[in-house]
Amino acid sequence: MKKVAVILSGCGVYDGAEIHESVLTLLHLERHHASYQCFAPDISQHHVVNHLTGEEMAEQRNVLIEAARIARGAINPLSALNPVEFDAVVLPGGFGAAKNLSDFAFKGTDAAVLPELKQCIRAFADAGKPVGFICIAPAMIPLIYSAPVSLTIGTDADTANAIEEMGAQHVQCQVRDIVIDHQAKVVSTPAYMLAQSVTEASEGIDKLIAAVLKLA
Amino acid sequence: MKKVAVILSGCGVYDGAEIHESVLTLLHLERHHASYQCFAPDISQHHVVNHLTGEEMAEQRNVLIEAARIARGAINPLSALNPVEFDAVVLPGGFGAAKNLSDFAFKGTDAAVLPELKQCIRAFADAGKPVGFICIAPAMIPLIYSAPVSLTIGTDADTANAIEEMGAQHVQCQVRDIVIDHQAKVVSTPAYMLAQSVTEASEGIDKLIAAVLKLA
Repeated sequence: MKKVAVILSGCGVYDGAEIHESVLTLLHLERHHASYQCFAPDISQHHVVNHLTGEEMAEQRNVLIEAARIARGAINPLSALNPVEFDAVVLPGGFGAAKNLSDFAFKGTDAAVLPELKQCIRAFADAGKPVGFICIAPAMIPLIYSAPVSLTIGTDADTANAIEEMGAQHVQCQVRDIVIDHQAKVVSTPAYMLAQSVTEASEGIDKLIAAVLKLA
Repeated sequence: MKKVAVILSGCGVYDGAEIHESVLTLLHLERHHASYQCFAPDISQHHVVNHLTGEEMAEQRNVLIEAARIARGAINPLSALNPVEFDAVVLPGGFGAAKNLSDFAFKGTDAAVLPELKQCIRAFADAGKPVGFICIAPAMIPLIYSAPVSLTIGTDADTANAIEEMGAQHVQCQVRDIVIDHQAKVVSTPAYMLAQSVTEASEGIDKLIAAVLKLA
């Protein structure tokens, strides 16, 4: 049974991990007979967004503690993730990937990835282990991998241009599909960058998980 | 296309709606070709639980605002739910059903259901419309329906006894199965009262959604 690390970035599309994408990742890992362990960085969220109004709330939350809601408590700090123990890693999307795991939402092409995450994903890459990036999470790829990687965030031109400017090759992709870079062993899918429904996101994530496990 | 209301109770198993059950409810409603709208009461959560440690946190959160995380913002206050506009209603579980929608977690057989929720579900029942209750949510059934209803919360003896004492008929049920009361048009499934995995919860919720839509 393949063992997969899932890295969450909070709990909620506007300030953390996209909840549907995260649950669908766990569901499809199980359906494809993989085991998994969730991780999240033990850091403050960039901010807290009221998901009813879209406005910022005057409070602070911790990425790991909020991500524990999605994981039903079964989650470890990212610092405890030993790449040697896993066959692959998957990163669901949500603004948490662009606000907590990186600052792509604010700095665009000048963004950086959380150092402990960058080090962790590079260890998977250096060991020839596959990594799955969902939704906006692929925006982190050119900030992590040194060689140019083929990836998708769907069809959004501005985001695609920024990603190309950072050194990756963006491939247009429909919501139910995936892009695979066989050399880098990187798989990506647009999910809620494009999805209009849970089933659309589910179909792309299903394919992503199958591809990641096949590369592992 | 059948139209289903989904009533959430926050965002997180220990103080709100169980996240996996909520997302699986939306997924299976779509898979069975129903449309849906999420609702939640605009009230304070009973408390906030740190899902990493299980300990109470010294802060306050609002049920509707937190439930909006699961619904990606597409949620209305429970006060806006007009039963005439829907064919059925489904209530996912999580402690929110026993802490925010009712006080069953604290008062057991002396519990009461949030008045606006009780009135709403009774309107569905009086109109002969089916209602699906997941996980611990069925504990509210004897507090809402006047005639005895057959239901399940799985196999937990203490909870089952309390439910029987309140006037319902508890039926033992395995995690991947459902209990249907055809007269009351009430469907229930244990989900995370018993589930050891997302797929186990998913299978029971899939059956519950199919049964609810068939009764609608």
